[in-house]
Amino acid sequence: MIGEVPNVEVGQAYKNRRLAHEAGVHRPLQAGICGTKKTGAESIVVSGGYKDDEDYGNVIVYTGHGGQDESKNQVSNQTLDDPGNAALVVSHLEGLPVRVIRGAHSGSAYAPATGYRYDGLYRVTSYGSKLGIDGFLIWQFRLESYDDTPVPDAQQQELPADLSAPIQPPAGNETPQRVTTSVQRIVRSTAVTRQVKKWHAGACQICGITITLPGGIYSEGAHIQAIGSPHHGPDTTDNVLCLCPTCHVMFDGGAIVLGNDLSVVRHGEVAGILRTHPQHTVNLDCVRHHRERWRQ
Amino acid sequence: MIGEVPNVEVGQAYKNRRLAHEAGVHRPLQAGICGTKKTGAESIVVSGGYKDDEDYGNVIVYTGHGGQDESKNQVSNQTLDDPGNAALVVSHLEGLPVRVIRGAHSGSAYAPATGYRYDGLYRVTSYGSKLGIDGFLIWQFRLESYDDTPVPDAQQQELPADLSAPIQPPAGNETPQRVTTSVQRIVRSTAVTRQVKKWHAGACQICGITITLPGGIYSEGAHIQAIGSPHHGPDTTDNVLCLCPTCHVMFDGGAIVLGNDLSVVRHGEVAGILRTHPQHTVNLDCVRHHRERWRQ
Repeated sequence: MIGEVPNVEVGQAYKNRRLAHEAGVHRPLQAGICGTKKTGAESIVVSGGYKDDEDYGNVIVYTGHGGQDESKNQVSNQTLDDPGNAALVVSHLEGLPVRVIRGAHSGSAYAPATGYRYDGLYRVTSYGSKLGIDGFLIWQFRLESYDDTPVPDAQQQELPADLSAPIQPPAGNETPQRVTTSVQRIVRSTAVTRQVKKWHAGACQICGITITLPGGIYSEGAHIQAIGSPHHGPDTTDNVLCLCPTCHVMFDGGAIVLGNDLSVVRHGEVAGILRTHPQHTVNLDCVRHHRERWRQ
Repeated sequence: MIGEVPNVEVGQAYKNRRLAHEAGVHRPLQAGICGTKKTGAESIVVSGGYKDDEDYGNVIVYTGHGGQDESKNQVSNQTLDDPGNAALVVSHLEGLPVRVIRGAHSGSAYAPATGYRYDGLYRVTSYGSKLGIDGFLIWQFRLESYDDTPVPDAQQQELPADLSAPIQPPAGNETPQRVTTSVQRIVRSTAVTRQVKKWHAGACQICGITITLPGGIYSEGAHIQAIGSPHHGPDTTDNVLCLCPTCHVMFDGGAIVLGNDLSVVRHGEVAGILRTHPQHTVNLDCVRHHRERWRQ
């Protein structure tokens, strides 16, 4: 069951995981990620179990599963072979919505005071690895709420006196739209990306193709070090490449990385050299950050 | 000046084109499209001058410029060489926002009763040619309002007694968000597109590439005959192809069309044959509609 659960509104609270399980909102009783590589992720629980998590309300940086000991310390590297992590990758690649359930914990201003709360559908907009606080490789997934999902109230909600009853959503809540079409990919355009595309006249800096359509040339501006959490790349021309859509997807998804000599490394093999333009410098710190994001 | 004009709110009315010109909302006094191939389109006026136009409020099917006689009858083919049409193509390819100004006319429920009204920013989400009502080739552009742009009120607004004063927007109007990042491309995913991608295991039906990323395969579902106005293609698997992002852009943009024998025609030359799957039939009516959309 991908997407909304019938008759469950955003803001619905549950006393415990069993009630969330019975409602079909998050089916596993322990695992934080529900899903498989075959289906994608149905739902995740954000409840402070990973110290590298970040919660900004409508944006969540969610640490993947695995590599922890019983005291929740990271003691080994995480991998994408983990079924939950693999499921979140598929949700990203296929543009599938993921239900987000927040659990009470002190690490997020958006967590409920007690129990669990269904906070609506989020998209997995990027992923990548990094060295976590404990010094092991972790995989992190950036999730963004759909535009029509209300940002969870930072005011923490209290359970009613009858703890066995599910909490009703606030009376003023509008019924959220049911998502039937998912967004798989969004390419944004800014003055910065347009400048870079202009320097290269739309030719892909990796494969060299120029896509000529009736009426014009099509190319995309790709940030090398992704902007926003958890990557925090600068929105400057030295952090942007002019790419064709396929090289853009391969670069954003880690199938292509760059060496410090601007060699193009495709699936681990040097496959050429980045095409450059005299006015377009490339920031090697950003290149390194992108490469490290795809360590495995 | 692409995007919002400072201090002009959505809903702002103008008695005539000269006042809209002076406000900087739509600079030409006669032309319906303001812009060039170099800059993209700044703004358009929708005022009933083309009988093939369609207005659904937050979606407009806008007929390009050219080919009319003085009585507004189409007497020759339109082309993308026309500067206004070329500007709208660039707005599409670069994801640039276009200001929409509606003028009073009887053909739209969303037009103002008199004068002109600035109705906010729209994106050019697709374009293509067709035989217009008068039997000549016309180019049409589908424009969609940004999510945060209010749909214009179908209730027609009246001019104040002092006709020389610009009409103030309704007092309750919230200030619209200024758009600084534009959307260049959105790829949507549905159960139908996922089925087609599954049949082909993500391999592009045109170029054969399979994009393998750490964690999974990436491909896109492409409608052959576009869904929605003005193309009205069915959302069925026989109207969807599994493509890589670059072939998807080339197919959607008319650089690639298919023959009735499923030959792949790239820039007018046969360049191969569509890869097929026994369970995936391809609707030849949709193939023909797509091909005819790119007649020139």
